Amino acid sequence: MKQFTAVSDVSDPIALAEEALAMKADPFGSKALGQDKTMVLLFFNPSLRTRLSTQKAGINLGMSVISMNAAQGWQLEFEDHIVMNTDKAEHIREAAAVVSQYADIIGIRTFPSLTDKVKDYSDFIINRFIQYASVPVISLESAIRHPLQSLADLVTIKEQTTKARSKVVLSWAPHPRALPQAVSNSFIEWMQAAGMDLTITHPKGYELSRDFVKDTPVEYDQQKAFEGADFIYTKNWSSYDQYGKVLQQDSNWMITPEKMALTDNGKFMHCLPVRRNVVVGDGVLDSPQSIVIEQANNRTYAAQAVIARMLRW
Amino acid sequence: MKQFTAVSDVSDPIALAEEALAMKADPFGSKALGQDKTMVLLFFNPSLRTRLSTQKAGINLGMSVISMNAAQGWQLEFEDHIVMNTDKAEHIREAAAVVSQYADIIGIRTFPSLTDKVKDYSDFIINRFIQYASVPVISLESAIRHPLQSLADLVTIKEQTTKARSKVVLSWAPHPRALPQAVSNSFIEWMQAAGMDLTITHPKGYELSRDFVKDTPVEYDQQKAFEGADFIYTKNWSSYDQYGKVLQQDSNWMITPEKMALTDNGKFMHCLPVRRNVVVGDGVLDSPQSIVIEQANNRTYAAQAVIARMLRW
Amino acid sequence: MKQFTAVSDVSDPIALAEEALAMKADPFGSKALGQDKTMVLLFFNPSLRTRLSTQKAGINLGMSVISMNAAQGWQLEFEDHIVMNTDKAEHIREAAAVVSQYADIIGIRTFPSLTDKVKDYSDFIINRFIQYASVPVISLESAIRHPLQSLADLVTIKEQTTKARSKVVLSWAPHPRALPQAVSNSFIEWMQAAGMDLTITHPKGYELSRDFVKDTPVEYDQQKAFEGADFIYTKNWSSYDQYGKVLQQDSNWMITPEKMALTDNGKFMHCLPVRRNVVVGDGVLDSPQSIVIEQANNRTYAAQAVIARMLRW
Repeated sequence: MKQFTAVSDVSDPIALAEEALAMKADPFGSKALGQDKTMVLLFFNPSLRTRLSTQKAGINLGMSVISMNAAQGWQLEFEDHIVMNTDKAEHIREAAAVVSQYADIIGIRTFPSLTDKVKDYSDFIINRFIQYASVPVISLESAIRHPLQSLADLVTIKEQTTKARSKVVLSWAPHPRALPQAVSNSFIEWMQAAGMDLTITHPKGYELSRDFVKDTPVEYDQQKAFEGADFIYTKNWSSYDQYGKVLQQDSNWMITPEKMALTDNGKFMHCLPVRRNVVVGDGVLDSPQSIVIEQANNRTYAAQAVIARMLRW
Repeated sequence: MKQFTAVSDVSDPIALAEEALAMKADPFGSKALGQDKTMVLLFFNPSLRTRLSTQKAGINLGMSVISMNAAQGWQLEFEDHIVMNTDKAEHIREAAAVVSQYADIIGIRTFPSLTDKVKDYSDFIINRFIQYASVPVISLESAIRHPLQSLADLVTIKEQTTKARSKVVLSWAPHPRALPQAVSNSFIEWMQAAGMDLTITHPKGYELSRDFVKDTPVEYDQQKAFEGADFIYTKNWSSYDQYGKVLQQDSNWMITPEKMALTDNGKFMHCLPVRRNVVVGDGVLDSPQSIVIEQANNRTYAAQAVIARMLRW
Repeated sequence: MKQFTAVSDVSDPIALAEEALAMKADPFGSKALGQDKTMVLLFFNPSLRTRLSTQKAGINLGMSVISMNAAQGWQLEFEDHIVMNTDKAEHIREAAAVVSQYADIIGIRTFPSLTDKVKDYSDFIINRFIQYASVPVISLESAIRHPLQSLADLVTIKEQTTKARSKVVLSWAPHPRALPQAVSNSFIEWMQAAGMDLTITHPKGYELSRDFVKDTPVEYDQQKAFEGADFIYTKNWSSYDQYGKVLQQDSNWMITPEKMALTDNGKFMHCLPVRRNVVVGDGVLDSPQSIVIEQANNRTYAAQAVIARMLRW
């Protein structure tokens, strides 16, 4: 595997999830694979879970891992044929090629601008990086996708049930700030690829990109969507149509025990961090239905499965 | 050992100090102990000595160590039943549980507010973290204690003398900024537990919490306190009564060669960093009586003894 | 080798370059050398290439490497006999001695003030650090030299040609910001020591310190300087005479394909980061004549050769 940025980079997402579960059962069984290999993780945006879990994954595989906050003091130019006489000190062509000299695998985290939809949805930072990198690149969340999260989500679902086709609901929930659509976009494409029975529910105005939604049903009545669900996956996102806007923070969309009661003893999932009593009530998060911590735990093994494939590449 | 936050977490502080000295004699002798174990160090406040020495300790024990500055971009909510719609993006319940997924041991550094005495003295950040963590937690300095420093101090005293009960003086010294009481509180409780002959000296108004001082004698005449001392342990702290205030910066309280001459060829100790010619004169720091560098060196072996106990736990 | 700050620290620069090339041929062949050894890299200024390549070098040699941004929250006092009652919390005497307790080798990066020429050219930060450190110290770029870069440059030249004495041109090029003279000073002294046929070219007013230039010819006509060159080494620097000033940004001094055509099929070198179409045109950087990426790659092996000598010391 030369890049891991989207479900389309993986021919067999379910097999990859199963590899992750095998890693979980024997975390140190493939330590020889990473011997004398170095992974460099570049964070253009802050990260806790992704940073710790990906670093742990590399360590479990016997690699050396170097994490770097690239945010400060490393302004990159991404456009070609530019006279670089302003604030950008380095061009992506050199940056990506140079980091490739020191790494066997590169991980990159970048967030969207939430102001320039066309640029964000071209996912240009990670794509430009891949274009000029000479080693495999892993997305640690890009402007429009978070594939390590989605793989961990799939791993978690596979771990919880033997059903091949679970009823999964992706539900918008309120949040005071404008958040990217990355986790939601990514979750949708992975659930589609894994053959899940996915329904999306959100208030009007929060429609996600048709390129991701495709023929997945959208149900504007949240409670109706929850009926009989096996998994409730909750996430806030800002508007795609009125790009990057917070249209409303209607607390009626918060996930509550009452709504969870509509499901078929459904599990509650969230990528974290989560704002309690805004996105979801304490009563849900602190109940046995919540599997958010196990989901976070599975981030390690999802990353480990991806890195292992790259090391074998 | 499930937590290391105070001397009360240790049943046998002197035995632990002796384990640290054994580690110093053979730093790499227990490398098998940490194999495939990961320690995550979270710094909510800056750190040099603690960071380097604790990281070194983990490495010496064969662990992988991940250090993270948690200060920026990771605002935690510590209160329960809160509607998290302001600036805090994650609740301590999730944060502690999640980091526990990636770590076999967690280290945390937090400083006091120096404004809210009740909250600071409940040591609520580290205690809340421990409450929700599922792995052992080490204090890398909390609001009111610095136990790795105090253990290193005890190790250093044990290394310097065969006396079971040394005369130890904790002396306040001036400083331009308002500093926590953590190092002093912690030193007092460790010296008490180790059965040292401890005297505290400081100007009026700088009385420390009775919960720490207990029946340790306080001598307001610094020179009188120094007479016949084996160890002078110097530290500035802000007022406890007028919480967090700098009441005076009286340079008469600076440690000088003249004052050191009053001791029984006493050693000068300080946790560092130290402001020269404010807290202590060059003539003391640059004399053979100063053991501050060895004290810093012993931080590694103090941490190593603590981590080793946790790994065996 | 006890310190690596200047070419004068090395008795045999060409042999060291050859050791680096041997490391490149077998990067992991000396892993036993660094076992149970720790290198601490302190960055008082930002770094990408130096940080990644030096860390990689340590890892390749089997060391543990701890990188630390020392910029924030660690203000050092370098002057002696100072009453430290302002903003500096620690004296270099303690800082260097303490870090030496945790490291077998220390690397330090510091930039010049570009305002105080006498202080900068005494290279006082790194020299003071060395004075009080008890372990070997590597310059990761100091106020006036960048020896790991220069060694990598020599390695790159040695790798590209079998000529013992290449015609090498150091050419100034425009840049919008005031940059240090460190890379240029250092390159000059390494090329002189390696017996290269070096010419320096720059606009009037950009004369470098005579202590570095010595009898190396300076040619103010850039095109004349380029004639028949084997290597064009480009770098901007601010004025030494009008210390730290940007006197002009004359785009006529930019490196172009037309100028490269004057050389003897010369290679283009730059330490990176480089501003495209300001310092050098796209047409040069994207041509086969550019060896800047290989130069960056060789940073690892240059550092590895230096560290290996220190470990054997």
